[in-house]
Amino acid sequence: MTKQFNLEQALLSDYDTSWTKDGVSGERIAKRLDALSQIGLTTQNGVTRVGFSQLEQQAKELVIGWMKDANMKVTQDGAGNVVGRVTGQNEDVPSIASGSHVDSVPEGGHFDGPLGVIAALEVAEAWKEQGFTPLKPYEVYIFTDEEGSRFNGGLTGSRTMTGVLDMSEQVTLKDSDGLSFEEVLATTGKTVEEFYKATRSDIGIERFIEVHIEQGKILEKANLPVGIVKGIAGPSWTEFRFEGKAGHAGNTPMNDRQDALVAASELVLFIEKAPITISTTGVATVGKLDVEPNGSNVIPGKVTLNADIRDIEEETRDLIVSSVVNKAQEIALARNVNVIITEKMRTSPVPIGEDMLGILNSVLDEMNIENKYLVSGAAHDTMILGAKIPVAMIFARSKDGVSHNPAEWTTLTDCTISAHMLKQAIELCMER
Amino acid sequence: MTKQFNLEQALLSDYDTSWTKDGVSGERIAKRLDALSQIGLTTQNGVTRVGFSQLEQQAKELVIGWMKDANMKVTQDGAGNVVGRVTGQNEDVPSIASGSHVDSVPEGGHFDGPLGVIAALEVAEAWKEQGFTPLKPYEVYIFTDEEGSRFNGGLTGSRTMTGVLDMSEQVTLKDSDGLSFEEVLATTGKTVEEFYKATRSDIGIERFIEVHIEQGKILEKANLPVGIVKGIAGPSWTEFRFEGKAGHAGNTPMNDRQDALVAASELVLFIEKAPITISTTGVATVGKLDVEPNGSNVIPGKVTLNADIRDIEEETRDLIVSSVVNKAQEIALARNVNVIITEKMRTSPVPIGEDMLGILNSVLDEMNIENKYLVSGAAHDTMILGAKIPVAMIFARSKDGVSHNPAEWTTLTDCTISAHMLKQAIELCMER
Repeated sequence: MTKQFNLEQALLSDYDTSWTKDGVSGERIAKRLDALSQIGLTTQNGVTRVGFSQLEQQAKELVIGWMKDANMKVTQDGAGNVVGRVTGQNEDVPSIASGSHVDSVPEGGHFDGPLGVIAALEVAEAWKEQGFTPLKPYEVYIFTDEEGSRFNGGLTGSRTMTGVLDMSEQVTLKDSDGLSFEEVLATTGKTVEEFYKATRSDIGIERFIEVHIEQGKILEKANLPVGIVKGIAGPSWTEFRFEGKAGHAGNTPMNDRQDALVAASELVLFIEKAPITISTTGVATVGKLDVEPNGSNVIPGKVTLNADIRDIEEETRDLIVSSVVNKAQEIALARNVNVIITEKMRTSPVPIGEDMLGILNSVLDEMNIENKYLVSGAAHDTMILGAKIPVAMIFARSKDGVSHNPAEWTTLTDCTISAHMLKQAIELCMER
Repeated sequence: MTKQFNLEQALLSDYDTSWTKDGVSGERIAKRLDALSQIGLTTQNGVTRVGFSQLEQQAKELVIGWMKDANMKVTQDGAGNVVGRVTGQNEDVPSIASGSHVDSVPEGGHFDGPLGVIAALEVAEAWKEQGFTPLKPYEVYIFTDEEGSRFNGGLTGSRTMTGVLDMSEQVTLKDSDGLSFEEVLATTGKTVEEFYKATRSDIGIERFIEVHIEQGKILEKANLPVGIVKGIAGPSWTEFRFEGKAGHAGNTPMNDRQDALVAASELVLFIEKAPITISTTGVATVGKLDVEPNGSNVIPGKVTLNADIRDIEEETRDLIVSSVVNKAQEIALARNVNVIITEKMRTSPVPIGEDMLGILNSVLDEMNIENKYLVSGAAHDTMILGAKIPVAMIFARSKDGVSHNPAEWTTLTDCTISAHMLKQAIELCMER
């Protein structure tokens, strides 16, 4: 039977086979990305494999099989997190670890998550081939429900494991079909009791490195296969609700208006420029803006907008946020409207430590690849681990920067280069 | 039985009875406004009496009774327009006329429309009391469906009578309950055949003056009971659809964005300032703005907004529109986004002629009331008639400028002053 979608073939058609070396196999990576792509494949040749679904569990079990073939010891905790472990020469020390997730957003792509898991597994495969035993234990993680599509959350597995998830709140959640978290857990063979036990008092990991697709265009523009993440931006969400006065668009003179939309527009333009003077890595976006009553001939009485502000340093991120808050108050005063400001979320950014950056830099030097620092604007499980232990991330080039979409694409050559980079970095971590 | 809402009592509690003179009676105006208020009275003490409803027809029949008591000859055409006629000394000439409407928006007020009909009727009542026979015929009009709430149109009666309504399109309309225009007409005892016959080849009116509440705050601020409308602004609606590129709010650097909302915001701010340098009477409003996909962490890919631009002179109105269109194109170019510009509506403004302004000015001089020129930002049946014959409008002061709302209020003193002003103006028209 011909497959509807053959990711393996597509990947191999554009692969520089010289990268299959030192135990790392581009052909194996292609086969595995393809095998995962078939679980939850959509008619658009994308994938819908949301967190806590049976499809996510099915994908994990496929990877568990590969882990076992690579002589790893496999465990799965009550939150569904999978750990495959390569025994180290010294088993009494915390592990060096890598991994990512296998869940996707609805109609997502085949690289966001799977690449990080398969690249991590490739390190173990390569060592097996090379007959190499690491000094310390090496662990490959599959974190559950990174995307959070089902319960509007995200990073659920890593947050459970590290104890930062509010579990008593989590168990009250319902998905869009009205199924409770407990009922959903049951469909993957888990219970709430086991879920509660998934939190570790000691994380047991010394260092963690995640391979992920860039989801941006910087590496593509720089013509580089991989890059080093120098920080994971912590998002801050602030809601601004401007309250002016609705009125007739024809009968209200221009000098007697309290138009909430012009006030909001002034803030939107300020937000666009807000990061510039404060930080080169900061970004600020108004993605959501709602006008009331939103009638063509009615002066807007109320406008609510959300400012999403991120940076890799908390200090500069917070400086941008306060500059926006101040500006909103200044606009409201000048325009005789009210503004109600509500902080909706404030996550700490995770700057990558010098030590981990040094490791990745020396690997790139050895690979003769120009060093390009990147910022991760999106959150990743590594951000959660980064609050506890030294972490790092390797980004692989994304075609057109597209992500969360069936068109998501990273060439097999770039995927394989990222696996090499990870392997060398993990080996350096073993020696620290 | 105690009435739920006693408009008569409320009006009389604050009435300067010295204005009941020369045959014009504030007490009668109060009684009649009250009687109309009971037809379609809502629990909020507002009124819901939409065009082409049985309630609108009931209100017309109440007025028809008053017309007959005032010795007027009454006819109703196929569009439901009511005409009450006082015989003139010369019946072979076109009439001098006044009037307004008795339909309302849903949950509207008790003055927008009814005041114009009752004030027009008061002229006939006064003449009857004074034993005065005008030189020319005098007609009082009740135009059907001025507000257009039922079929999303408006000015339906006056547009039908003057032949500017697309009747073949009108008969295809359905209301929000799915009733066809024909079915709705039938509920008020009319047929489509009669409706088609309501268009007049010769309008038969020499001059028309409408009394209406201001629906703005200018007279209130100037502490004046009435004012002269110097022009009815013609609205132009232009839709601007900015198309940029959606993207991740965290992963897209600030200098690599095609954000449709910042482009739109720049235009919103330009639109606010656009009238200033071109016209003192122009107004420009963005009342409706929709963001796509409107997610907090997604750079807006598409934004659609409507610019409502009005002025009493077509030339300046159109100059404001073109300045906005040019700016939109300039913004799109500078920000590397597309903009699709669609004209949705362009109605000609009706400036009031010098002759009619002269008549109203001399009346105000005689009444010893300071002359205040106003612009009507909203459309009125008079605007439709104004394309054919000389017209004028008298505005009565509105409390807080509120309209289309149960809180709509004009004091009985101001109502009565407007009736006096109308009567004297009509009498001057008779002599021209």
